[in-house]
Amino acid sequence: MNASFETLRTELTDGVLTATLDAPPINMIGPELVRDLVTLLGRLSRTTEVRVVVFDSADPDFFISHVDLTKVAEYSAEAAKAGGGPQDAFLGMVLRKLSEVPVVTIAKLRGRARGAGSEFVLACDMCFAARENALLGQPECGFGVAPGAGGVQHLARLLGRGRAMEMILGAQDADADLAERYGWINRALPDAELDEFVATLARRIASFPPAAIHSTKRAINELTMPPADAVRADGRRFQELVAAPEVQDRSKELFGRGFQTRGPLELDLGARIAELPAAG
Amino acid sequence: MNASFETLRTELTDGVLTATLDAPPINMIGPELVRDLVTLLGRLSRTTEVRVVVFDSADPDFFISHVDLTKVAEYSAEAAKAGGGPQDAFLGMVLRKLSEVPVVTIAKLRGRARGAGSEFVLACDMCFAARENALLGQPECGFGVAPGAGGVQHLARLLGRGRAMEMILGAQDADADLAERYGWINRALPDAELDEFVATLARRIASFPPAAIHSTKRAINELTMPPADAVRADGRRFQELVAAPEVQDRSKELFGRGFQTRGPLELDLGARIAELPAAG
Amino acid sequence: MNASFETLRTELTDGVLTATLDAPPINMIGPELVRDLVTLLGRLSRTTEVRVVVFDSADPDFFISHVDLTKVAEYSAEAAKAGGGPQDAFLGMVLRKLSEVPVVTIAKLRGRARGAGSEFVLACDMCFAARENALLGQPECGFGVAPGAGGVQHLARLLGRGRAMEMILGAQDADADLAERYGWINRALPDAELDEFVATLARRIASFPPAAIHSTKRAINELTMPPADAVRADGRRFQELVAAPEVQDRSKELFGRGFQTRGPLELDLGARIAELPAAG
Repeated sequence: MNASFETLRTELTDGVLTATLDAPPINMIGPELVRDLVTLLGRLSRTTEVRVVVFDSADPDFFISHVDLTKVAEYSAEAAKAGGGPQDAFLGMVLRKLSEVPVVTIAKLRGRARGAGSEFVLACDMCFAARENALLGQPECGFGVAPGAGGVQHLARLLGRGRAMEMILGAQDADADLAERYGWINRALPDAELDEFVATLARRIASFPPAAIHSTKRAINELTMPPADAVRADGRRFQELVAAPEVQDRSKELFGRGFQTRGPLELDLGARIAELPAAG
Repeated sequence: MNASFETLRTELTDGVLTATLDAPPINMIGPELVRDLVTLLGRLSRTTEVRVVVFDSADPDFFISHVDLTKVAEYSAEAAKAGGGPQDAFLGMVLRKLSEVPVVTIAKLRGRARGAGSEFVLACDMCFAARENALLGQPECGFGVAPGAGGVQHLARLLGRGRAMEMILGAQDADADLAERYGWINRALPDAELDEFVATLARRIASFPPAAIHSTKRAINELTMPPADAVRADGRRFQELVAAPEVQDRSKELFGRGFQTRGPLELDLGARIAELPAAG
Repeated sequence: MNASFETLRTELTDGVLTATLDAPPINMIGPELVRDLVTLLGRLSRTTEVRVVVFDSADPDFFISHVDLTKVAEYSAEAAKAGGGPQDAFLGMVLRKLSEVPVVTIAKLRGRARGAGSEFVLACDMCFAARENALLGQPECGFGVAPGAGGVQHLARLLGRGRAMEMILGAQDADADLAERYGWINRALPDAELDEFVATLARRIASFPPAAIHSTKRAINELTMPPADAVRADGRRFQELVAAPEVQDRSKELFGRGFQTRGPLELDLGARIAELPAAG
């Protein structure tokens, strides 16, 4: 696993790989992070050394902020290299592969996971979040687009109709406690207990016979994973909506207010997105 | 939206239509309310002015009590006028249309929503309820019938097998906190905070680009809505069971105790229905 | 219902049958308990006297510990006698029949329900658990096998992807409060209130017209029950994995530490199973 990643730092101990997201300034998903993820997934599909992967972030404020809206074409092209070819040039298809690796993946969430950041978390097998600082959100409808990388699929199944409508159409941030109540994550834990809780669970699972783990994970996936065609359809809808004039206008307005830079807009995006002029 | 409704009062502000249910004495669903609902749904399917509808009640004790059991044929005939014709003469098919309007619908729940009242709430996109006074229930099994307008479909999906069995077979009232814990509604809120919470969320969603809202709502519906044939089958089962002699006997007994009038039986129906003689 | 059961004691009052699991030393599921269960299910499918069955345990520490791992072939052969024949020689198929009896079943849970014990609980229509002492777990992955009698099917549907992964791959015990939060059971109640709560609910349902109860239960089952083929596939995977050399080695180690006897290992199995040497 000692690869030359640009946006990931990895460390392997007793079958548990810690993969730390490190893509300054705000851990956006762009072509580099997708390329690194595709590389990592390729290795995880062949490994016998890694049993569990714990994803965390080098940035205390941002787990993953969201996709880089200026590089949709570029990161989508990287996504195609995960093996599916041009018809799978969607971030959602890479995240779907993440859900299917034969090792167990755990998101240890501190800071913000919005848009594709939330979808990354939903693609992991489990997520435990720091009560004091974790935030999840699908702000897409506030821009005029729709979650395109699995968010609609997973949240409709996990939260049920009404709560998925609220969180996706409302485009608001959920703190860790609300996310736990709604079933978006496994649990909210006090920040001071999060590391030990996740480390203990990861070591525990890594000590169990891997054939049973793989087989059981596959069985749970068969019952819970969105079909590939639905993920592709959501990816296409995202790419179509993102090109609409109204969305371009709202994006321009947001970039003028500090979007995609470290600052108050990105820190408080859930609230700030409702300060845009009302759509026509 | 300035229609001459018999049972609804409406007011439009900044894209948010407030529709207040007002059908004395206890907001029962009869032919008038179904007719008004069909009219409203027709307009909502063509509107560009309305982005969000908030349903509330003029009666602090009853959001919607339940259907008028003396007028099943009449309100079902009105339901057919929603466009489906005789094969869709089921309240559940009107509520299904309510779930599919291209605007966002929010139930602001104070007081009782039992039977078709609960099913109305479940057909809305979201429901926020006053912790102090909201009650939800599907009392049908206590009468000897089964929820016929979407309750079985939605609750089985939202609550899961065991909790749907408990609430439907048990025919008990759930207060807002239990309804939140079980996923029947989005959230229970203090009565004093409910208006502001719903108004803020409604204005927020009304300010977002409508194309994204419509498209995303449709995507969530595809994953969560019961199929039309299942709703029709539930409607038929309700109409068959309601005609059974045992059900007629229990209804007569209940009418003798004050059913469908304002009073202790209707206020406390969840408890009172178990005071009937045990079924043979 | 006055049968000569070996492992069940039954008592019928006002349509409510109490069936007390009594299979010392630790209420394991072996051929006797499966035989008794098959007998009981046959009678429940023909009864008009019984409306509700409440399952409880004569052992305050163990509701059902798990299957007897030394008698998989024997209890599976008994399972086949439930009517399905050799192709249904799986405990999961008997539990599936339990879910489909035309009376309502309630698990009143005190003590441990692990492995097939949890799966028995999930097969009941409802479960109410004592907050102070109930424990649920699917420890199979810690042995190197996978839940084989419905646990994967039900938990994936009830808990959602992430929480099902956590509880099944993690093979940990959940206390009643966590089980309630995750939707594994209906509710956790104070031990002192559990008997009255369940008795009241059982009597209530037993007083309602049975035709409506049967019809509604069947409708909820159609929406929530795992397909028979999936249950058979899980049963086969369990039987294959249990024969693997690594699983045999881990079992031997566990038997050496007191497995299947009354003592600290069985009482605290969720924690102790992670003390085995890490799998190769």
